[in-house]
Amino acid sequence: MNDKIAAPAFGFALLARDGDARMGRLATAHGEVATPAFMPVGTRAAVKAMGPDELWNLGYRLVLANTYHLALRPGAGLIEELGGVGRFMGFDGAVLTDSGGFQAMSLAKLNAVSPEGIRFRSHLDGSEFKLTPERAVEIQEQIGSDLMMALDECTPYPADRARAQASLELTARWAERCVAARRSSDQALFGIIQGSVYPELRRQGAAQITAMPFDGFAAGGLAVGEPKERMLEMAALSATLLPAMRPRYLMGVGTPEDLVAAVGMGYDLFDCVLPTRNARNGSVFTSDGRISIKQASYARDPRPLEAECGCRTCAKLSRAYLRHLYISGEILAARALTEHNLHFYARLMAGMQAAIASRTYREFAAGMLARLGGGRSAEQG
Amino acid sequence: MNDKIAAPAFGFALLARDGDARMGRLATAHGEVATPAFMPVGTRAAVKAMGPDELWNLGYRLVLANTYHLALRPGAGLIEELGGVGRFMGFDGAVLTDSGGFQAMSLAKLNAVSPEGIRFRSHLDGSEFKLTPERAVEIQEQIGSDLMMALDECTPYPADRARAQASLELTARWAERCVAARRSSDQALFGIIQGSVYPELRRQGAAQITAMPFDGFAAGGLAVGEPKERMLEMAALSATLLPAMRPRYLMGVGTPEDLVAAVGMGYDLFDCVLPTRNARNGSVFTSDGRISIKQASYARDPRPLEAECGCRTCAKLSRAYLRHLYISGEILAARALTEHNLHFYARLMAGMQAAIASRTYREFAAGMLARLGGGRSAEQG
Repeated sequence: MNDKIAAPAFGFALLARDGDARMGRLATAHGEVATPAFMPVGTRAAVKAMGPDELWNLGYRLVLANTYHLALRPGAGLIEELGGVGRFMGFDGAVLTDSGGFQAMSLAKLNAVSPEGIRFRSHLDGSEFKLTPERAVEIQEQIGSDLMMALDECTPYPADRARAQASLELTARWAERCVAARRSSDQALFGIIQGSVYPELRRQGAAQITAMPFDGFAAGGLAVGEPKERMLEMAALSATLLPAMRPRYLMGVGTPEDLVAAVGMGYDLFDCVLPTRNARNGSVFTSDGRISIKQASYARDPRPLEAECGCRTCAKLSRAYLRHLYISGEILAARALTEHNLHFYARLMAGMQAAIASRTYREFAAGMLARLGGGRSAEQG
Repeated sequence: MNDKIAAPAFGFALLARDGDARMGRLATAHGEVATPAFMPVGTRAAVKAMGPDELWNLGYRLVLANTYHLALRPGAGLIEELGGVGRFMGFDGAVLTDSGGFQAMSLAKLNAVSPEGIRFRSHLDGSEFKLTPERAVEIQEQIGSDLMMALDECTPYPADRARAQASLELTARWAERCVAARRSSDQALFGIIQGSVYPELRRQGAAQITAMPFDGFAAGGLAVGEPKERMLEMAALSATLLPAMRPRYLMGVGTPEDLVAAVGMGYDLFDCVLPTRNARNGSVFTSDGRISIKQASYARDPRPLEAECGCRTCAKLSRAYLRHLYISGEILAARALTEHNLHFYARLMAGMQAAIASRTYREFAAGMLARLGGGRSAEQG
């Protein structure tokens, strides 16, 4: 099965390198994506509080949706009927679907993993839903995402070595079955490296998965509860094990600081709920660190969240007003803070792209990390 | 006190008439407003789920906010400090503030009405908050609304004649005190006619209130639970009692059908939570009547809410997707449906303005009412 050809609609070109950091361009059936790229999370085919045109206007050309959630509701067949997930959600860019492997961990009480696949109890109505590698690919082909993920078992943390090894083997067998099951010619398929926090297992997983004809590769099973240093250590190791000419995706990462570090390791793609979830909890990203809009000190503060920010929120709304909205439970609070946070992430990625192109990534990263560390002053500012 | 001069920043010009229907232009310190105009309700200085730029882009130049709610949170002084309510909420148009009289009715368990004013127990923290006519004007001047409403007692329904008469007298005394208390020269002040469902009381109230130097007049105490026919009857009567050269505001109205009827009576201004609240409950206005997005029949429906609609929602999102968003509890459902409903209302008002200008209001109204009555077919369509 290793002679399968990569999706013709899919391509990845490296345009610049600076140290291990890479700047490039992903081609998909739904347009191009400049990398390194951050994907906002749209679990149910909607990035919470955001409209599809707003994501586009913020510069996002690739968002993430979730196979498990969409298969349960509204159903993959329905999405296929309606022209695929991008068209369904009114988004003109590309979509990556997570395979459902993560939900085998995050919804562990509701499922059982066997060599065959994952048996879920629906979190919606308790009905049974079975996700095999073949079915995960079939569903993603129906959903019509541009980038599909192989079904993996996202190894929980902590896992002892034997558990992590078994999980790794299972993920490798599932990966082979995903490759074999693949039918669509215009959707890319990515393989996922597990291995928990064990360097030898990471190496073994990478050797197994990169031998298969995937269009790209992801480091999975990180940012799932392990200490930050282990995450960065495993991410750095995994990056060195992934083919240079294929896109590298660090799943579930992360904070702005993490992104700066991981781009420096040579990753190209990222996803995380942080900018959107934090926004709904009143937590705002700025170049000088995070601030909480709930703080009493902002009650009469006429300034925008961030003076240098060009987002729609900062153009019109003061901290005092945003605090009022948040405390009043107005939907507009979630919207305005989410838009700002996603604008911040988009600007960060664009800044990294430009720094790599101009071979100034090291300086950019150092400057960014120094400023981001200044959160305390932002809180007081 | 009757020699007070109307706010110089305020003006009202009638540009066309067709029968009793009028088309005109309100001038305020924050721009002009074409009438007849519908005001979206932004109780806490935010129209639920909508951004201020979106309201503007939908064509709204005047929105409503609420004195009672804003005085409690974030406080009128804070809004004044931040440049007034329009600037506070990032809205480039004008703002009308309701006086708080309506909350004396809607939050009746939390307050006591006396000749002096209304004593509230804050719905937020139980603290005491007193609203006298003088204080209601002072607060609105601090809030910086362009159109202020006199403090009235919104007579609840049902009210026997003696109760309604007493309420009317109280409202008249409070109206005098509001006129006397007024300081600001660039904010208009409107008087409110009560009288419940008693024609003689409506006449008496109108005689009292229109003798005072208000910049405009409102029919209040309607759409508070009385049968629809009584509402329309009292609204029609009240319209004939209000000065032709001043703007006439029918408070709390209403459905698209009500608006068509009331514009035909000669009203110029309206407010109602229907388009926004209904949207959050999945109820959608279309030219062919209301539809509920929850319906199973829309599960696979690729059509927009309304084919002829030019709103952002209808440009991109299908009924199937909107139903999915609604059922999934996504914030975007509230946003997308609210935007559509407010676009529908804006289009309705613009249509009425044009029909009056071209002296075809009767035909427009008949055609609109015939289509709106076709809600059943829209549900099935």
